[in-house]
Amino acid sequence: MVSVGTVPGPIQSIERAAAMLRLLARGSGEYGLAEVAASLGLPKGTAHGILRTLQRVAFVEQDEETGRYRLGAALLHLGTSYLDANELRSRSLNWADALAARSGQEVRIGVHHDGAVLVVHHVFRPDDTMQTLGIGAMLPLHATAFGKVLLAYDADLSAATRRRELTSLTRRTIVTPQSLERVLTQVRAAGWANDAEEYLPGEASIAAPIRAPGGLVVGAIGISGSVDRICDSASRAKPALVSQVASAAEAISRALSD
Amino acid sequence: MVSVGTVPGPIQSIERAAAMLRLLARGSGEYGLAEVAASLGLPKGTAHGILRTLQRVAFVEQDEETGRYRLGAALLHLGTSYLDANELRSRSLNWADALAARSGQEVRIGVHHDGAVLVVHHVFRPDDTMQTLGIGAMLPLHATAFGKVLLAYDADLSAATRRRELTSLTRRTIVTPQSLERVLTQVRAAGWANDAEEYLPGEASIAAPIRAPGGLVVGAIGISGSVDRICDSASRAKPALVSQVASAAEAISRALSD
Repeated sequence: MVSVGTVPGPIQSIERAAAMLRLLARGSGEYGLAEVAASLGLPKGTAHGILRTLQRVAFVEQDEETGRYRLGAALLHLGTSYLDANELRSRSLNWADALAARSGQEVRIGVHHDGAVLVVHHVFRPDDTMQTLGIGAMLPLHATAFGKVLLAYDADLSAATRRRELTSLTRRTIVTPQSLERVLTQVRAAGWANDAEEYLPGEASIAAPIRAPGGLVVGAIGISGSVDRICDSASRAKPALVSQVASAAEAISRALSD
Repeated sequence: MVSVGTVPGPIQSIERAAAMLRLLARGSGEYGLAEVAASLGLPKGTAHGILRTLQRVAFVEQDEETGRYRLGAALLHLGTSYLDANELRSRSLNWADALAARSGQEVRIGVHHDGAVLVVHHVFRPDDTMQTLGIGAMLPLHATAFGKVLLAYDADLSAATRRRELTSLTRRTIVTPQSLERVLTQVRAAGWANDAEEYLPGEASIAAPIRAPGGLVVGAIGISGSVDRICDSASRAKPALVSQVASAAEAISRALSD
């Protein structure tokens, strides 16, 4: 029961259920009961009760042969419903298509989620090459143009990121807090960010901030492609592409205040 | 506490949290506290405690201006993780691409979820026309080729569907339990299903069952397109396309038993 006048505390069983779903989203995606219980530091009986409830609501499925648990189909539909209701995404669709057509590169829109960039929209590069849809993917903040934009305008997130270990993903990834801080200062001064082989070898990106009415940065839009398409011979982002990305970001920001 | 030897019952707060997320996935996707509480028949304090906890774990977001609740970003990542771990989908990708290339039509793979067809994979029609990605969408069982396949091989689901009202979506939708039962008998005899303007005016589909080792039907693969591409002049599915769909379904079923 909630007492009058007090703010209710978080409900433990729901927090544990959420932690279980996050666990199942990792690695191989299949876990036995003992692994789930041990990972979350719960008695097996407690973990089993939560898993059975999650199974009843189709958030979790159990493999009939192995008895192992994995994420359930209900989450796919909820994830799609999140996208459908996402205003940033729905207001950006046309601008993202136009940016892909103009730049000839793949376009992504990302927001901060859980210490990473969550890709909420993805437009394929307008050519015939095989590409994998990246919606729902999580990109590292410190190693991508999208992440640098989100960090540059969020002091709390930036401080938290600099306190964590900055994982080296390529030879060029920024791995010291000092370098990251310096780069973020440059991003704020320039109004856009880039990365060149800092996340994936051979790949580069350019991104710019999307602002809600009032100026708060709520996301980033950018293009990605091979280093030779995105950068000049000195590994600098091509000015024409930077200008296209910045224009798209400004157009979306204006659309958000309509 | 769980007593020794008893199976734990479902955890009420988790079931309520799941019901709230399903509610938020409907309609406009934004609900006030009073609406959520009333929809689920809960006191406001109880509903508020659950919403606050869901917000803490990023399953729910609250609009800063209006105070209304909507689905949160964590669900998008969980939904994508479900797809990544979905064996049916990962084993089908190449066959789905090949079917799209051969038939020249868009290809979908669907599974049963919550009284509907959940689309777990979607390959665009291989031409330049604008198409919307349909992964995560829910299609009606009784009005689509995919749904008829899933119903034909699942007696419980078929009985439950025939007991419900069969919603009329076009002039051609099957709306009586008797007609549906007759069609499902034909589907079992033929090994494939089709629909012609029963779901969307002008659109038709052909689908065939994907079987897990042992023969259980676990999903359906099919093609969709304009009626004149999929059907002959008598509104019958073109035999060449039926054969392509059936071959793809058989190839995936074989791949699942490897």
